[in-house]
Amino acid sequence: MVKNVSIVEKVHSANDQIAEEIRQRLDNSSLFSLNIMASPGAGKTSLIERTLKELHPHHKIAVIDGDLATSIDADRAANAGATAVQINTGGQCHIDANMLQKAINSLDLDSFDLLLVENVGNLICPASFQLGTHKNVLIASIPEGDDKPYKYPVMYQDLDALIINKIDLLPYVDFDMSYFEKGVQLLNPNLVTFPVSCRTGEGIEPWISWLAGWIVSKTT
Amino acid sequence: MVKNVSIVEKVHSANDQIAEEIRQRLDNSSLFSLNIMASPGAGKTSLIERTLKELHPHHKIAVIDGDLATSIDADRAANAGATAVQINTGGQCHIDANMLQKAINSLDLDSFDLLLVENVGNLICPASFQLGTHKNVLIASIPEGDDKPYKYPVMYQDLDALIINKIDLLPYVDFDMSYFEKGVQLLNPNLVTFPVSCRTGEGIEPWISWLAGWIVSKTT
Repeated sequence: MVKNVSIVEKVHSANDQIAEEIRQRLDNSSLFSLNIMASPGAGKTSLIERTLKELHPHHKIAVIDGDLATSIDADRAANAGATAVQINTGGQCHIDANMLQKAINSLDLDSFDLLLVENVGNLICPASFQLGTHKNVLIASIPEGDDKPYKYPVMYQDLDALIINKIDLLPYVDFDMSYFEKGVQLLNPNLVTFPVSCRTGEGIEPWISWLAGWIVSKTT
Repeated sequence: MVKNVSIVEKVHSANDQIAEEIRQRLDNSSLFSLNIMASPGAGKTSLIERTLKELHPHHKIAVIDGDLATSIDADRAANAGATAVQINTGGQCHIDANMLQKAINSLDLDSFDLLLVENVGNLICPASFQLGTHKNVLIASIPEGDDKPYKYPVMYQDLDALIINKIDLLPYVDFDMSYFEKGVQLLNPNLVTFPVSCRTGEGIEPWISWLAGWIVSKTT
């Protein structure tokens, strides 16, 4: 037996004005930018490391990392060759445009052509805060399960690209790819999808090509 | 190079009074209760299914499920034999005491001896909202990575038990158990820990014994 108790509360966003200013500044500097979101442990930092390895020789890349505490992720990005800025949100479960603006103020935007913003590990709140970045990217990961589009629909609705990470674990977990894809299709038809393993490198090349295409379109 | 931008914002909690009322009601009904928290896909519902399978023959169990949308989890709990109540939070990233009170109002508390509250999939906000439940349980999962205690410290500080799920995936991922355990130890010395696989059933028995002990201590 299932009983229902509904508590609906709107998430209010007061940060769209700042997000618009950020977009203007990025555009003025011909700087293409991604807002990378995911659950904790889905592979945001691993994807950034892989991306830096492929693109660092050809592009100047800045990474802004949002975390509750520590600079583990920014350190990893810096070790992989990026200029990295750590935002410690002090308990906040997402980056908002105000935090991003402060981080951007510490960068010389004209000296980069790609900005990767690694949001806080969370499938809920980051979807409600526009940052002014050009594209929203979500990393889903195989061991999280195939029901996530159904359970976290808002996150899937405003995406421009979906990375399906940890495909090397497919033989060892119960993950019905067609059920997952059906959920994605319902929420966001025609979403660009990249099945990858950041651990093995499988599937990374199409993602890099997609991203490189956007960088070039911005700088020419 | 890593630059630091700190934005500290306190999470305010106005719900402790309601949590205290909930605790009183649970105690008056000799009803032992858990607040089960985890990242999306760490295995909250799978643990509840396993727990129901073991304890349902001996105890009367209610499950309250918090989700953004859908009743997938409550349906699974109901199918496993529980009386299940679904809270749809309408975008909120956690259950608060007010939501839980409304859900509890729909149950005859005297007719149960175990209440499992499945929080929203999130490693951040649920840690800041007391619910009045007796014990806080976190499910970490192996593929999430071994750095989670360091990156989500608040979640680990107020725990009474830690389930380490998906140990069947240990051979296929890079997970340093001693690094993980060191982080847990720093934040919460002497935390009771249960390494399990909800998929295979490995390690479930000590968890069931721990839980059954608490139920008995409450009802006698």
